[in-house]
Amino acid sequence: MSKFQAPKGMRDFAPQEVLKREYLFDIITQAFKRHGFMPLETPTMENLETLTGKYGEEGDRLIFKVLNSGDYLKKLRNKDEKEREEIITAEGSKKLTPYICEKGLRYDLTVPFARFVSQNHGQLALPFKRYQIQPVWRAERPQKGRYREFTQCDGDIIGDSSLLCELELLQIYENVFSQLKLHDTQLIINNRKILAAMAEMIGASDKLTELTIAIDKLDKIGRQKVEEELAQKGLDSQQIEKLSPLFELSEQMSKQEKADNQSTLKTLESILAQTEMGQRGIAEMRELIEMGQACELKTLYFDPLLARGLDYYTGTIVEVKAKNTQIGSLGGGGRYDNLTDIFGVKDLSGVGVSFGADRILLLLEERELFPENLETYCEVLIIHFGKESQVQHLQLANKLRKAGISTELYPSAAKMKKQMKYANQKAVNFVILQGEEEIQNGQITVKNMHTGEQKTQKVEEFIQSFAP
Amino acid sequence: MSKFQAPKGMRDFAPQEVLKREYLFDIITQAFKRHGFMPLETPTMENLETLTGKYGEEGDRLIFKVLNSGDYLKKLRNKDEKEREEIITAEGSKKLTPYICEKGLRYDLTVPFARFVSQNHGQLALPFKRYQIQPVWRAERPQKGRYREFTQCDGDIIGDSSLLCELELLQIYENVFSQLKLHDTQLIINNRKILAAMAEMIGASDKLTELTIAIDKLDKIGRQKVEEELAQKGLDSQQIEKLSPLFELSEQMSKQEKADNQSTLKTLESILAQTEMGQRGIAEMRELIEMGQACELKTLYFDPLLARGLDYYTGTIVEVKAKNTQIGSLGGGGRYDNLTDIFGVKDLSGVGVSFGADRILLLLEERELFPENLETYCEVLIIHFGKESQVQHLQLANKLRKAGISTELYPSAAKMKKQMKYANQKAVNFVILQGEEEIQNGQITVKNMHTGEQKTQKVEEFIQSFAP
Repeated sequence: MSKFQAPKGMRDFAPQEVLKREYLFDIITQAFKRHGFMPLETPTMENLETLTGKYGEEGDRLIFKVLNSGDYLKKLRNKDEKEREEIITAEGSKKLTPYICEKGLRYDLTVPFARFVSQNHGQLALPFKRYQIQPVWRAERPQKGRYREFTQCDGDIIGDSSLLCELELLQIYENVFSQLKLHDTQLIINNRKILAAMAEMIGASDKLTELTIAIDKLDKIGRQKVEEELAQKGLDSQQIEKLSPLFELSEQMSKQEKADNQSTLKTLESILAQTEMGQRGIAEMRELIEMGQACELKTLYFDPLLARGLDYYTGTIVEVKAKNTQIGSLGGGGRYDNLTDIFGVKDLSGVGVSFGADRILLLLEERELFPENLETYCEVLIIHFGKESQVQHLQLANKLRKAGISTELYPSAAKMKKQMKYANQKAVNFVILQGEEEIQNGQITVKNMHTGEQKTQKVEEFIQSFAP
Repeated sequence: MSKFQAPKGMRDFAPQEVLKREYLFDIITQAFKRHGFMPLETPTMENLETLTGKYGEEGDRLIFKVLNSGDYLKKLRNKDEKEREEIITAEGSKKLTPYICEKGLRYDLTVPFARFVSQNHGQLALPFKRYQIQPVWRAERPQKGRYREFTQCDGDIIGDSSLLCELELLQIYENVFSQLKLHDTQLIINNRKILAAMAEMIGASDKLTELTIAIDKLDKIGRQKVEEELAQKGLDSQQIEKLSPLFELSEQMSKQEKADNQSTLKTLESILAQTEMGQRGIAEMRELIEMGQACELKTLYFDPLLARGLDYYTGTIVEVKAKNTQIGSLGGGGRYDNLTDIFGVKDLSGVGVSFGADRILLLLEERELFPENLETYCEVLIIHFGKESQVQHLQLANKLRKAGISTELYPSAAKMKKQMKYANQKAVNFVILQGEEEIQNGQITVKNMHTGEQKTQKVEEFIQSFAP
C-alpha cells in the first residue's frame, strides 16, 4: 500500500462511485427544480464568527479551523513572554486558536444559508426557495459510515409561513424516494406545538426540551427507559402517568399495518384538546394531512411522539425512514422561525428538509437499486488495427461521437487481447472492428459485448440502431 | 451591509451564477464523456506530506493549512520552555506549523490525481482517462478576477504515450469552445522537444529552463526584452544571434491571417534539422497536425515559440486563447512523463489539459453568450385564489409537474400584484389563473409572460403545447 493516502475519514470517489452519487444528486436536483427551487452554493470556508456558537459547545469543537496565512503568530509575538506562555500552555489548546485562525470549514449548509439570506435580505424574491448540495466537514472520530467529509443535500423555503411550503417539501421527498424505488419509505410527521401541548398538559412546560429529548429515544430504548429518564429529569410520577395515553397510542400505532392518520388525529384530539397549543398543533397537522391526500401523497405517517433533537424547530417536523432496514433516518427537517435572527434579520419563517445522502446510497447499494447501465463509461470501443487504418478509425470515431454515441479509439495497435481486456474494463456495449476488408467494403464489424453477437454492417445502420 | 460576509476572496454563487457555471461544466463534462473519460473526485483535504514540495516554495506558502483537531498543542507543551519559545518566535511563524497542522486544502487537481493513480496503481484500466471538476484553494492576495477559492476542470489520459491521446484532448477542447460559440479560439500547440532542440542548437542545453521562461514572455514584452533577459541569464551574443531565424519566423507568423502549420513545420525543419531532438519534436508535431486534419480540427495553431512555464512538461504543450479579447489564456496543458514518480510509481506517461473556468465564464458574460432561457427557474406559476380553490390548484400543479413542466403554486392567497411580482422575479414563462369560473368550466387561463397574450384553454391543451 502506498504511503500516500487520502486523510483519514475522507474519501476518494472513484468513477463508479461518482456516477452513483450523481445518479442520486440528479434525481434530487430534478425534483427540486420541478418545484421551482433555485440552486445556491456558498464558499467552503466561513469566518469563524459566522460559525461559532451555532452548533453548541461540542459542535464548535468539531469545526475544522483553517490556519491564517502568512506570519500568523505575529499578534502573539507582540505579547510579553508570560502572557504568551499562558496562551500556549492553556488546557486543551483552547486559548491559542482565536489568535491563529479566522476561518473554519462549512459544518452544515444551514448556517451559511442563513448568512446568505441575511446578507442579501431585501434583494431576494420571497418566498426564497433554494436547494444546495455541497460537502461539509466535521472533525469527528471516523468510524464505519461516519466520515469527516460528507455531502449534505438541503432544500429550504424561507419567508412564508403557509403549510403549502411543508406540503411541497413532502411532495419532493415522496417523489425522490419513489424514483429511487425505495418503496418502503415513510415520511413520519409531527408538529412541535403538539409536543409543547403535551408538556403543558402535564404541567411541565419548563421541561419541554428534556421531554423532547427523552421521547425522541422511545423507538430505541422503549417506554420504561423513557419514563426513567423523565423521572431523572425531575418529572414526578403523576406527570409521567399523565403521558400514558400517549404511550398507549404509540403502541397501538406500531401494531397498525398501514398508517391511519385520521384515527391518530382523533385520539390525540381527545388527549390534548384542553390546551390551546394542542388545538393549534392538531389543526396544522390535520390541514397538512388533508392537503397530502388531495395531492395523493401515499407515505405520510403522523406520529405524535416523533420529536427530533434539534432545538430550533417550531412547527412541523419530519423524518424519513425506510421500514425494512436497520439503516437509520434517510432525511429529516422541519419548520423554524428564528433561523436568520442570529444574523440580524428577524421574522423570517422557513421550512427545510435534508437528504441523508450517504445512508441513501448505502441502502441503494444494499438493495442493488442502481440502474444497470450506470457504469457504461463508453458505448463503443474501436479496435486499433495499425497506423495504415488509423485515419479511417479516427473518422469513424468522429462520426459516432457526432451522432451522440460515446466512443473511444484504443490509442495504439496493441494486441487484440489487450484491447479487448480494456473494452471489458470500461464496460463498453459494443466493440467495433474496422480491418482492411471492412474499409474496402465501407463497412464495420460490430460485436455486441452482452450477447457476443457479431454483425458486419454500414456505419449508418449501426448509428440508426441507437435511434429512440 | 451585514457584518457577516463570506471570507474575502471567496464567493457565494447565487442561483443565476450557479446556472451559468453548470451550463459550462455540463458542456465540458459531456465532451469528456463522449470520449470515454471517467469522473474522479478527491477529498478537499490532503495530508501535508502529499502536498508539500510539489508547487515550489511560493506554492507551499500559499497552501491553506488546517489546524489539527483536539488538543493540538500537546506535542509542543511537552517540550521545555526554551525550545517552545524558539518555535513560537521563529521568523515568519515558520516553525510552528508542522506541530499543529497535518492537513492542507487541495491546491490543484493534478497532485491529488497523481496520488490517487499511485495509490490505485495495478487496479486501474490503462490508459486511465479521467476528468475532474472541483474547487481548489490558494491563500493569495485576492484581487479582481483572482479568488482564493476557484474551480478547476482537468482532463488527463495516463498510461499511454501515443499521440492519439493528445489528439483526443485537442478534439475535446475544440468541441467545447465551439459549443460555447467562442469561435475565435485557437489551440496553440508546440512540443518541449522543439524548445530543447533550440537550446541544443545554440549550445545552451544547460540553460533550457531559463530559455523557456524568457521565450514564454515574447508575446508580452517583445523580442528585444527577451534577448536582454537571455543575456542576463548568461547567454552570449552569438548564442542569442542564433535564435534570430526563430524570432523572424514568429514575426512572420504573427502577420498571417490564418495558421499555415505546414509552412511553419517546413521552415522550422530547416532551422532545427541538425539536432536529433529537433527531428523528433518536429516529427511529433507533424503527426499530430496531420491527425488533426484528418479529424477536421480547425483551430490548431503551431507556434514553435510557445513555451508554457511549468517545468514538468516533456512533450506536446498546448495553450488556448481567444483572439479578440484581452482576457488571457482560457486553458492549457501538455504531456508529462514523471507525474507519479514522486509517489513511487515510475514510467507512467500522461497528457492533460485544464479549462480556465473563471476566465471562460467572464468571456461568455462579456459576449452575452449564455443561453436565453438559462434563468427560467420555473415554467409556470399558478396564482393562489384562496383556500376554497386550493385543492384544485394543488391538483393542477401536480398534473403539470407529472408532465415534466416545472411549476410553482404561490403559497398563499396574497394580493394579485404581489403574486405577479413574484412571477416576474422568478422569470416564469407562464402564469396560470384558475378562478371560480375556470374551475366550473374545467379550464385554465394561461398568460404568456413574454407576449402578454392570455388564453383560456383545457389543461391538456396547455400540456400539449410543450410537446416537442
